[in-house]
Amino acid sequence: MMRKRTVALLVVAMMVLSSVLTLAVVNLPSFVQRASMGQGVLGALSGGGLNDQEKSKLSTVASLIESNYYQNVDESKLVDGAINGMMEALGDPYSSYMDTDTASQFSESIAGSFTGIGAEVSQDNGNVVIVAPIKGSPAEKAGLRAKDIIVSVNGEKLSGSDLNAAVAKIRGEKGSVAQLEVQRAGSKETMTFKITRDDIAMETVYARMTGDKIGVIEITQFSLNTAERFKQELTKLQSQGMKGLVIDVRNNPGGVLSVVEDMASQLIAKGKPIVQIEDRKGQRQVANSSGQSVDYPIAVVTNGGSASASEILAGALKQSAGATLYGETTYGKGTVQTSMDNLFNDGSLIKITIAKWLTPNGDWIHKKGIKPDVAVAPPDYYTVTPINTDTVLAYDMNNDNVKNAQIMLAGLGYKVDRKDGYFDRSTETEVRAFQAEQKLEQTGKIDAKTAAALEAALIKHIQDPQYDVQLNKAIAGVEKQVSAAK
Amino acid sequence: MMRKRTVALLVVAMMVLSSVLTLAVVNLPSFVQRASMGQGVLGALSGGGLNDQEKSKLSTVASLIESNYYQNVDESKLVDGAINGMMEALGDPYSSYMDTDTASQFSESIAGSFTGIGAEVSQDNGNVVIVAPIKGSPAEKAGLRAKDIIVSVNGEKLSGSDLNAAVAKIRGEKGSVAQLEVQRAGSKETMTFKITRDDIAMETVYARMTGDKIGVIEITQFSLNTAERFKQELTKLQSQGMKGLVIDVRNNPGGVLSVVEDMASQLIAKGKPIVQIEDRKGQRQVANSSGQSVDYPIAVVTNGGSASASEILAGALKQSAGATLYGETTYGKGTVQTSMDNLFNDGSLIKITIAKWLTPNGDWIHKKGIKPDVAVAPPDYYTVTPINTDTVLAYDMNNDNVKNAQIMLAGLGYKVDRKDGYFDRSTETEVRAFQAEQKLEQTGKIDAKTAAALEAALIKHIQDPQYDVQLNKAIAGVEKQVSAAK
Repeated sequence: MMRKRTVALLVVAMMVLSSVLTLAVVNLPSFVQRASMGQGVLGALSGGGLNDQEKSKLSTVASLIESNYYQNVDESKLVDGAINGMMEALGDPYSSYMDTDTASQFSESIAGSFTGIGAEVSQDNGNVVIVAPIKGSPAEKAGLRAKDIIVSVNGEKLSGSDLNAAVAKIRGEKGSVAQLEVQRAGSKETMTFKITRDDIAMETVYARMTGDKIGVIEITQFSLNTAERFKQELTKLQSQGMKGLVIDVRNNPGGVLSVVEDMASQLIAKGKPIVQIEDRKGQRQVANSSGQSVDYPIAVVTNGGSASASEILAGALKQSAGATLYGETTYGKGTVQTSMDNLFNDGSLIKITIAKWLTPNGDWIHKKGIKPDVAVAPPDYYTVTPINTDTVLAYDMNNDNVKNAQIMLAGLGYKVDRKDGYFDRSTETEVRAFQAEQKLEQTGKIDAKTAAALEAALIKHIQDPQYDVQLNKAIAGVEKQVSAAK
Repeated sequence: MMRKRTVALLVVAMMVLSSVLTLAVVNLPSFVQRASMGQGVLGALSGGGLNDQEKSKLSTVASLIESNYYQNVDESKLVDGAINGMMEALGDPYSSYMDTDTASQFSESIAGSFTGIGAEVSQDNGNVVIVAPIKGSPAEKAGLRAKDIIVSVNGEKLSGSDLNAAVAKIRGEKGSVAQLEVQRAGSKETMTFKITRDDIAMETVYARMTGDKIGVIEITQFSLNTAERFKQELTKLQSQGMKGLVIDVRNNPGGVLSVVEDMASQLIAKGKPIVQIEDRKGQRQVANSSGQSVDYPIAVVTNGGSASASEILAGALKQSAGATLYGETTYGKGTVQTSMDNLFNDGSLIKITIAKWLTPNGDWIHKKGIKPDVAVAPPDYYTVTPINTDTVLAYDMNNDNVKNAQIMLAGLGYKVDRKDGYFDRSTETEVRAFQAEQKLEQTGKIDAKTAAALEAALIKHIQDPQYDVQLNKAIAGVEKQVSAAK
């Protein structure tokens, strides 16, 4: 089942705010070692920290602010600000100080689990709609279904205009109860569900087999449980007689270093390098595969949203397992972070870049990314924005809304002869054809109804795997390798 | 002489980076008082500053960074970062920590003077060109003229692509020598000028009299010498029989509070309020005029770039001198800052918001601005961007470059029937007409030559006061009041 594919048109939020771009080292050895030596972490820090003069300088500024600023100031905010400022001074977007809320989202993302009811929701016409309940979750057990509209949570009305705020209301601590008022298609009255929140494992691995026995595994991020899930799906595909494998890491922001090492080990010959880690002194450590190679061809599909651990996987499979890369150049994040969450006992967390990582051949891909072997550009309609229907679009108009409509029409296979925003006669003809197809009045103009139909048709089109040109190119490439090997 | 009028097309840089949006209190009484009591400034601060636990927290973070970050870290940068972070935690864009360079630019802007050679330069076709030498400056005395191209400074070639970098090379300390290699129109060889840098007073007041005896005074910012310059120009206009006054504070970012109070006093009846200052405890102090009213009508021209002291002047003249406001809603900055530059003895500076200011009637215009009595929108060609001529623009093309060309043509009075970027037959006809007027080949297409001619014609148009619709509306309004009073 392919579930993740998102484009600008589709606003889908998991019940957790995921996608924290990172490559985390969990249980950093040297860090743990220090702690276990019976010293506090702080005592073991080799850096000197601030001297008295520097401390006094910072205190002076705080005092100056508190004495003069035209509004009252919360001193703890100044201290948080100072920490933020020190992290920002590094000029590294991956080193940051996270307050309690952000830190907890980050930790959930890394862990690949969160507490909630376990439903994926999206925004549709101002409503919060269930995309799907997660398998085995309280939401599924309670009987929530796809397309159910969540009207209110514990008496508080929801609005789709701010999906994050809605998600925050639905989520909560393990054991607490969410009372959901739900509108189901076909019934006039709303229904009420009482759901006890629980730990929910996020799905990060989606696998399927094509008719020609090519396995396709999509990995949405590298959370702590992802290597195990990958192993399950890989084993299943192999037992079904898989002849070739396509791994899809498009828009995968990364995750945990040890997890991607585990996963690469399942496909790379024992002893071959997966990744090199270079510390601040320039010393390199090579992580080698502890697993074995496979006897089928491998392809990896990447795009500009494939970052960090995704890039490690792509680089490792290319350079140590002969995999072919399809799609677009990757994001280009060649550093490793660790997070420290026990410094202040307030739930806050410091994430800091501690090393570079290099591909098996020693390339540092930071700010460059990895180029695909076979470049496949995404269709332009992947990034089209919804049509603003404040004014009805018609012949001779010329603006970005017309442009978006033209891109959508062309994406759906209509033969508009320009996609630059000028509403010419050909656009008019194709709008009429689309309206005929959709059984709408054939006005040749784009009003709110036609625009909504266009967007809905495009979303359906995008979700249909047969139109995924990047993935299909990779599948075709692997099929060709399979045939050639016969 | 009107000199300031800038639009997106015209990149003109004074020899100082001015336009630091601020309303500064120079010699803040309470601050000076503390210092004069024989205590250090720091000792007099009433805020407690950081406690030991907070200091240690910050030191821990610094130590953590120094021990773990993958690159070497300069500790002084961390301290600067921490100060920046504390200022940013206030969430006030007007409170900030400035490093030595920024602080020195800020101080020069407030003072209204800087050290350099005293020439206004602009960017033209990749060249750094002198707009005008400032009166009495070393540049004028040495014989530099408008339109001279500065080729190099002390042997370093200049490029117009980064005007700020060029300005930085031309400027320097008082007494130092800048050797300029200059290309003058008409001569093949370059000329060399050795110019000794000196203190240069920035011009912030430009005055003229219309044929109908309406005085027009443009104020570009409120520097320490601006009130005195305003008095000189006002006296001169009055002695010439001025019947009405138009004050132009468009794109004036503000300056020194006491200066604008001085200026308002020259036009407001003694004892009438100019501005109210509300401190952090909510207590208000009213600054009243110490001058006298005038017997001619006053108009003030504002736009979205009129901020801070400009808004105080507009509010005061409207509410306490019956002036009429023309143009656009002002920026909306209703706070007062002070700067402290003697804290760390390193030339750095902290600017902090210490109070709100309110109009005479007690309105806080922060984030709202002051609405004009007579709204006059600026022409669209004021903000048009230059035409990119990588491809020649021609019939049936549709893009932003065509749009910009259409806006320019329309601004120059050509009758294009659309300005939306679609190059139709009417655009083609008008391009031919423009080419005929400019004695260019009449191709109906826009190549680099035609584009350059269009931009040059538009700049000339914009600099011509007869086309300044906002200012002209104000002048006409004042003339009407003068006639009515007869």
